Amino acid sequence: MIIEILCVGNELLSGITLNSNAHWLAGQVASAGGIVKRVTVVRDDLGEISDAVKEILARNPDILVTTGGLGATYDDLTLEGVAMALGKKIVLDERAVQMLTKSYAVRKLDYELTEARLKMAKIPEGSTPIQNLLGSAPAVFLQAGGTKIFCLQGVPTEMKAIFEKHVMPLVKKGVGRFVAQEVNYNVMGVTEAMIAPALARIVESYPREDIYLKTHPRGYRKKTPQTRIQLISRGKDKKEVKKRLDAIAKTIENEIARLGGRVC
Amino acid sequence: MIIEILCVGNELLSGITLNSNAHWLAGQVASAGGIVKRVTVVRDDLGEISDAVKEILARNPDILVTTGGLGATYDDLTLEGVAMALGKKIVLDERAVQMLTKSYAVRKLDYELTEARLKMAKIPEGSTPIQNLLGSAPAVFLQAGGTKIFCLQGVPTEMKAIFEKHVMPLVKKGVGRFVAQEVNYNVMGVTEAMIAPALARIVESYPREDIYLKTHPRGYRKKTPQTRIQLISRGKDKKEVKKRLDAIAKTIENEIARLGGRVC
Repeated sequence: MIIEILCVGNELLSGITLNSNAHWLAGQVASAGGIVKRVTVVRDDLGEISDAVKEILARNPDILVTTGGLGATYDDLTLEGVAMALGKKIVLDERAVQMLTKSYAVRKLDYELTEARLKMAKIPEGSTPIQNLLGSAPAVFLQAGGTKIFCLQGVPTEMKAIFEKHVMPLVKKGVGRFVAQEVNYNVMGVTEAMIAPALARIVESYPREDIYLKTHPRGYRKKTPQTRIQLISRGKDKKEVKKRLDAIAKTIENEIARLGGRVC
Repeated sequence: MIIEILCVGNELLSGITLNSNAHWLAGQVASAGGIVKRVTVVRDDLGEISDAVKEILARNPDILVTTGGLGATYDDLTLEGVAMALGKKIVLDERAVQMLTKSYAVRKLDYELTEARLKMAKIPEGSTPIQNLLGSAPAVFLQAGGTKIFCLQGVPTEMKAIFEKHVMPLVKKGVGRFVAQEVNYNVMGVTEAMIAPALARIVESYPREDIYLKTHPRGYRKKTPQTRIQLISRGKDKKEVKKRLDAIAKTIENEIARLGGRVC
């Protein structure tokens, strides 16, 4: 289950907003056993959004999630960019208008459907609006070849609610049974370079998707190097996942001891 | 001055590590008046790194900054990926070996140059290593067509030190004189949709790079909407930048009042 994420917004490219949406989405996908292959961040520019969408679709992921650019303002261009990439028109969608009306009613707001507000109900032809009860702009789903595209909001609360309800079940269904177990070592006295050969041997002896093994350098305290070693065992069978985790953990612990390091 | 950022690392695509490097880099570039056109995040995979580099170079940015994947471990593949994209070999660079030796000496570490450590001195042919005194792996500079490529570390302290010393001066020189002034309004009683038409009119009447005007929805308190309006005026002349900021600020304040909102 391959997912790509496209985040749209100048504020993500000028140091104003930290891209916590991509981080959260990646964590969700990983927790279900899916793979986020790439995150792309582009500015609020029609051509750049459209180009990025085309490039992503050419890589044929199972799902493309976009975030941001669904609002009422002049620089909210995601749906237009997606439509342009697919050679589709943007059309005022009656269902989306009803959703806007409903979301105002639910929040007990008596808003007139001005032109600016109706912009949020203009979606690529052939796509399906998704009710957003925490904000105004509906999310949008459309199928493009083998890729399911979900255009989600940039506001984290709204994005998360729609993702959990509409995208996560598809990821879970696509991946099927999935179990992951993790162990982390904080090691004193061992650098990345020291343990690298042993870890490379471990990685080579398992299928790529069954384990995740990564060292994170944590600098030096006085002259003693500190390294975090992270091991995740993944698969469909809980017993097998555990067995693999235990076997690799044992190898790593022996290697740390051999190198004169200690786990703390 | 167009910059692209390529971040390499599975941990950025599985929700383990928040991509604070891209955020910091984007802030630095913006503060000097440069434009980050795109951020791309790929996994520790040779083909994916190489593909991303090729795609970025085809867009011909002035500078490409990569982060991560320079270390001693099996999954540190950035330099190999860059070399592959450019059809170059990876070669053991004597200057990089000296830098490794020096960085160990500076940190008073008595390390043997094992094969794993020497991996950090293997760089694309024709590129230039850059001393990293806060860690081991040198950074790498190479020119590819009109693009200056800087391969920086993933460890934030190391990446920041090299960026400030070696990349930031180029960004500043490329942009030339640059001044930015900013004002932010926290507005009660006005939604994005309400103020959108006025903001669109403002944006249309200035050259694209002279102002940055963005609304950030902040949800509702009881039934009152809250919106942050951010205005940045940019340019080469301080007086002009200030004059533009004041004029637009006045227009925005009048519009907020007209809509029955208030700044708080």
